[in-house]
This record gives sequence, C-alpha cells and structure tokens, in this order.
Amino acid sequence: MLITGGTIVTMSSKGVLRDGAVAIEDEYIIDVGKSRELRRKYRRYEVIKAERKVVIPGLISTHHHAAMSLLRGYADDYPLKEWLERWIWPLEKCMNGRDIYVGALLTAVESIMGGITTINTMYHYVEGGGEAKGLAEAGLRGVVGHVCFSWRKDEDRRALEALAREWHGKRDGRIRVSVDPHAPYTVDPEYMVELRHVQKDLNERYGSPDNPVIWHIHVAETEDEPDKIREAFKTEVKGGVVEYLDSLGVLDRDVIAAHCVALNERDITILRDRGVKVSHCPISNLKLASGVSPVPRLLDAGVTVSLGTDGPSSNNASDMFEVMKVAALLHKGVWRNPTILPAEDVLGMATREGAKALLWEREIGSIETGKKADIAILNFDKPHLCPLYNELSHLVYVAKASDVETVIINGEVVMENREVKTVNVPRLMEEAEKAKENLLSRLSQSTVKG
Amino acid sequence: MLITGGTIVTMSSKGVLRDGAVAIEDEYIIDVGKSRELRRKYRRYEVIKAERKVVIPGLISTHHHAAMSLLRGYADDYPLKEWLERWIWPLEKCMNGRDIYVGALLTAVESIMGGITTINTMYHYVEGGGEAKGLAEAGLRGVVGHVCFSWRKDEDRRALEALAREWHGKRDGRIRVSVDPHAPYTVDPEYMVELRHVQKDLNERYGSPDNPVIWHIHVAETEDEPDKIREAFKTEVKGGVVEYLDSLGVLDRDVIAAHCVALNERDITILRDRGVKVSHCPISNLKLASGVSPVPRLLDAGVTVSLGTDGPSSNNASDMFEVMKVAALLHKGVWRNPTILPAEDVLGMATREGAKALLWEREIGSIETGKKADIAILNFDKPHLCPLYNELSHLVYVAKASDVETVIINGEVVMENREVKTVNVPRLMEEAEKAKENLLSRLSQSTVKG
Repeated sequence: MLITGGTIVTMSSKGVLRDGAVAIEDEYIIDVGKSRELRRKYRRYEVIKAERKVVIPGLISTHHHAAMSLLRGYADDYPLKEWLERWIWPLEKCMNGRDIYVGALLTAVESIMGGITTINTMYHYVEGGGEAKGLAEAGLRGVVGHVCFSWRKDEDRRALEALAREWHGKRDGRIRVSVDPHAPYTVDPEYMVELRHVQKDLNERYGSPDNPVIWHIHVAETEDEPDKIREAFKTEVKGGVVEYLDSLGVLDRDVIAAHCVALNERDITILRDRGVKVSHCPISNLKLASGVSPVPRLLDAGVTVSLGTDGPSSNNASDMFEVMKVAALLHKGVWRNPTILPAEDVLGMATREGAKALLWEREIGSIETGKKADIAILNFDKPHLCPLYNELSHLVYVAKASDVETVIINGEVVMENREVKTVNVPRLMEEAEKAKENLLSRLSQSTVKG
Repeated sequence: MLITGGTIVTMSSKGVLRDGAVAIEDEYIIDVGKSRELRRKYRRYEVIKAERKVVIPGLISTHHHAAMSLLRGYADDYPLKEWLERWIWPLEKCMNGRDIYVGALLTAVESIMGGITTINTMYHYVEGGGEAKGLAEAGLRGVVGHVCFSWRKDEDRRALEALAREWHGKRDGRIRVSVDPHAPYTVDPEYMVELRHVQKDLNERYGSPDNPVIWHIHVAETEDEPDKIREAFKTEVKGGVVEYLDSLGVLDRDVIAAHCVALNERDITILRDRGVKVSHCPISNLKLASGVSPVPRLLDAGVTVSLGTDGPSSNNASDMFEVMKVAALLHKGVWRNPTILPAEDVLGMATREGAKALLWEREIGSIETGKKADIAILNFDKPHLCPLYNELSHLVYVAKASDVETVIINGEVVMENREVKTVNVPRLMEEAEKAKENLLSRLSQSTVKG
C-alpha cells in the first residue's frame, strides 16, 4: 500500500513532508519520503491518493472507559457525589457483559471515525470478551485493563489472570492488557502493593520488554484524595497522593497515572524521578469540576504528558481533536501565557507522547520506517480549513473528527472515505439504543425491588 | 414548507417537542406543533423529513470579525503584543476590499455549515460591500459594523453613514448595521461620546424600534485596560473599565460588550443596571491568555450573556458547537462547581440570549410562531450521538458542526444535506487560497519597501 501526494505530518525528526508518501507492507511502515521517489520505488503497490490531504500518525487516547458510551448523556451537570451515587453507579450496576462489549465497540467505532487508532481503557473484565472483544473486532489498537477495588480482591485476581491469558499480545499484537487499581482511595495500601506484584508476575508470564503489561490508575483527580485515603484506610498520608503512592513503592516507568490534577511540587518531582507517565484529561476535569492539572509544570519538569478523552460519561465524546484544542487553550488562559502548549507540542502529546505513555513507542506514535502503520488521513479541502498557512495549527485549532476520511491500523484500512469497514455501524447503533432501553428498564425494576 | 417528524428544540415555553413539526411560509414560522396535526393542517406544503433528526433555532455568534478567516492559522501561540504588532496587523494592512468580502463570505459559509444563522461582526467598512456583501450573498443574517478608532475619525464618520445608508435593514431585513468603537483604549473619551450620538442619529434616520442600529464594542478583554486608557488619553480612570464607560454616559440596553473578562463587582452591577449585553468568547479569551470572564456572576446578577466565536485568527474556527462545549466546561472547572452552566442554559446563550443581545429577539432566537424561520436540522443518527438520553446534553457536549445537515435562514434553505445552495464553495475556497497568496506577497513587498 502506498499513500501518495499528501502532506505527511510525521511527528518524527523528518518533520512535515509536502507531497510526501508512506509505503506500507503488511502491518509495517517500510518507507517514508517524497511522492516521486516512493512512486518509483514501489510501483506495484496499491495507491491511496492523498492530494490536498494531511496524513498524521493515529491519535492515542491514554485514558478511557470505553464501555461507558452507553451512559453518554444519561446524567450531566450534577454535583460529583450525586452524579456518581444517584445516577452513574446504579445504572452501571445494571450493565451486563454484552453491554460492556457493545459499549466498547461503539467507542471503538467513534474513535476510528475521529482518527484515534489506540485507546487505553479501564473497565471491568468480562469472561469471553467485554471491552477487549469490542476493540479487537473494530480493528482498534488498545490497552485493556481490569479495574480493581479492595472490596472484590478475589474476583479481581481471577479477572486479571484471565484477561492477561486471553488477551495480552493478541490480535496481531493490537491488544495489550493492564492491571488497573481504581484509585488510591478505593484500593487499600496492602492491595495496592499486591497489584503491583500481580502486574510484574503477569508481565513475566505473558509479556516481554517490547510487549509489556502496564499499570493504569486514577491519581489526584480531586484535591480531597488524601482525606479520602485517610478516611477509608485509617492510614497516615503525608503530603500529596503521589508521595503516598511512592511510599508504597509502586511508582515506576510502567505506571500511567490519569488526571494528576491536585499535585504539589514534590509530587511532580516524584513523577519525574520515577518515570511515571501522565494522562491529562482536560475535558473531563473541567466537566466534573475537578480543576486544572499543572501541565506546563509537568512538562517543564520533564514528565511525559499524554492526552486522554476519559470515558464518555464525563466528556461526553471520544474525540481527541476536541481534547487537543481544549488542552492547547486551557493552559494558555489559566496561566495567562499565550505561548504555553503551542500546537506542535499538543499534537505531540496526542501521538508521540501517548505512545511513550503506554510504553508502545517502538511501534506507534509517529510515521517512521519500521513502525506499525497506524495512520489517519484528513481531508483539508473544506471551508473551515481554508486558507492553509500551517498544518499543525489547523490540526489542533480547527480540524474536527469529521475531517478524518481514512484510517489505517496495523496496516489494515479500517475506515475509507468515512465508511467503517470492520463493523456494521447501523446495526451497532440499533443495538446500543436497545441496550440503553434494557438498562433503563432493568434499573427501574431494581429500584422497584430495592 | 413543513419540517416533520423531528425532535423540535424550540427554546421557547413549548420546550422539546418529540415527533414535532414546524410550518414555514415565506420567511416566517407560522406554526409549531405535533407532526400529525400539522401534516393535516398544511397538506400541500413541501415537506422536509426530519425523522431521527433534531431541529434547533439557528445559532447566533454575537462577536465576530468575519473577514479575518483569511488570517486563520497565520500566527498562533505568540505573546499578544508580538502577535498583533508583528504578525496580525502587518498582514491586515495588506487586505483590500475584495479580501474583506472574500473573507466574510468564507466565514458565512463556514457558519452556515455549522448551524449558525446570525453573526455580529466588527470590521472595516468597504465601499460597495465588504463584509455586508459577503454575508448577504451567502444568505446569512447578521449585524455588520464599522470599527472606529481615534486616529481616523473623518474616515469613520463617512464609513458609518455609508454603511447605514447602504445596508441597514437590507436584503429582506437580514442585514443590520452597528456603530463599533474598537475599545476604550483606542477611542478617546470625546470620540466615544460622539460615536454614541452618531449611532442615535443613524438609528433615527435609518432604524426603528424593531430594526435598531446597535453599538458594539470590545470591553475589559484584558486586565490592563484601565492602564492603557490612562496612558493613551491622560485621563483619570477610577475603578474598572465599565465604570469608566458609564461615566461617559454611553452605556445602555443597545450596547453589546464583547469579552468582559476583567470585571469587578461594581462593573457587573453597572452592566445589569444599564441593560448592557455581554458577548462571552471563551475560546478566544483562553487562546489569547486574556483570562476567564466571570459568567456565573454575570448570570446571577441578571445580565444577558450571549456567546461569540470571536474572529478566526483568535479561535480559529467559526464553530458555535465548540464555543458551547468550552463555555459549559470552563466555568464548571474554574469555579469548581459541576452544576454551573448546565447544557440547557448554554444552548439558551447560543440562541435566545444571542437574539436578545442583538435586540433581535422579536424575530429570532427560538422556534415560535411569528418569528423568522432561522433553523438548523442536525442528523443524530451517528455513533458519537448514540445512545440518546437527552437532546440538550448531546447538543452541547457531543454534537459537532458537521452534524448539521440542513439550514434555513429567513425561510430560505441555504444548506441541504450539507450542500450550501447560495455559494459556489469550491470556487470560494480557491479564491480564499489565492487571496492568502496575494496577501503574503504584498506583505513581503511592503516589508522590502518598509
């Protein structure tokens, strides 16, 4: 396969290539260069024409709860506690394995349609599939975790073993798994340490340095987390939540910490020293009124900061173009400095840094020879993208998910001219509507019984 | 014309009508009700089917610089002073009348494609057309102003007279004009007062209570405005900028103040007491690092707050769906309260309140019998809008400009199935690209000469 004639935003040292081309064989990018040269070199390749189009590495959302698309828009604009306890949790309890699979498949389709090629998702393991099956079927790349709580340790242990055995490195290496302690205030200190050992053990048995099982956790989403930890576990918490986790010895370079809103300077230093990766979720943090993560400080300190959509009940979209624009805007406004987070850096967070955050940078995150072919092609021939001075600016400040026309994941064309090839989309939407109806009727039954 | 079978979000006391219909005759909405009933009543009307679609009042952007689409993405992520002085102003100086017309036409097309039916735009008057001509040709509704500065009073006086004479109330009443003092720090106190008299005079001669000439000004965009006023005019400024303007006697209910970021409590009280309308432009304010307008305080005080995209060189899109989402998110995060600016209120700011802000609420801002037919129809049959619990939530938190399928302005279908009927869009895009190239070459010539 040969993509020709487009502007290639490589996100590598090659920068932006005009009239560029990308040669793909099986799942790999085998060459990147000028169209004329590659057309001559790869004469018999099937050609995807990309004139007036912009070719970018697939976007990477490093924090997600894919199945929760089924709850999208069910409850908004409530106080956090009421939102969770009165609305989200009761409806989530009604979700069965099939719902989780359907919800994840819906998110996978929405993601692909918006140029996302990899997501890192935390939800409940389901025998026989769940989120992993949804992602796999859509052709999406992803890290699928099982979320762990102190109140269900035995179930978690079994789930993690089954998840790793059934899914790690599967589907041509597209699906990886992670161990996901929910948060420092829902996972007690002993269990937190145990889950670190569980991850290392799973990694030894199912993973490898190039195909690791990682650790994914919510950290410092709100300011009151130290209090919540003290209250839940009657334990001492000196300083911030990051310092607390570090005192347990669980922080390392294979940890991805979602949110990181309420950080102090010492927390930031620890994140840097341990090589912890941050998933910044600005839309979710604003919507739930959690606050604003000190991203410019994290970047100055040298921490790897990637971007996440978070789940569809706190965003409510799986749209990395929105996340990029809000990230680029928010910190300029809050720090009163218009030079913070320029477009190029933000696009880097959504691609190259996202790959690093998932320890997947050897294979994805840029358009480079030797990497897996995860690519999105955008049509820039539209009024809102006209005129064109600078592709990077347009990608962050103007382009929309709907401008993505063609998506390639692991060398496979999963969307062409906005038609998703891997999933029967109208049937999926019907099924998602039906799942919603069933959820609501199960909820009203459980309420009547309860 | 009869729109049937859709969900009608009326933004009036009728609320949300399922399986609703809207009957349109000439430029007016003549009936709103249930599909069954209206289908019987208006048998011979041409039908627009809206099954699985959502019908909303056209969105209203109350602060814009339409012509600046030609500068979109030319310069981003610079400090404000460098951005203006080194980048934007030198290129703007190269713009001719034709450029202003092309830029405005491009913005009008982008606006229509995103469900915007009215914009309030401030730019330079051009003989024979300029922005007014661009809007008029595209079929957009709008208030077109001429921006005034102390350094060109005579030119401004002539421009305002010509603008009002040529354009006020023209094109079936779709185009109105305004008098636009640029800002308190670029318009001296005497000239500010004079421009108020000019507006009143133009209003008497060309306007009427139902068709007023309004006053549009940038106010308190940044914190240093009082200092800038002192420096520019060696005048005393006690308190905030609003208080200063009020001391000149220029504030009244026909004033629309864009930005209103740096306000104190007294300023807010004055805005309320005088009935001044606010145009909140959160994307622009963040991008230029101006800060965050105290919108929840303004709303509590009873001030009319509408939404604006601002011009395309500080946004960089003319997309009210983005503005709605960012407005809904930003204040929740900044005020640490997730119940602030719920979806319904934000949609109100983009429709009903926008109409009030332009003193146009008798004709637009909601879907009601007797109002002008300014309507956008969105296709909700898409994965990212699935499942559907609540249309208002989806409209603010999920829907995109690209979900708008059909747009009606003043009873005329200006876009159908995403095809703009009023403008040759491919040719316009070519012309905008060419205009950009010419601008850059004129700039390099002027730089060589300069």
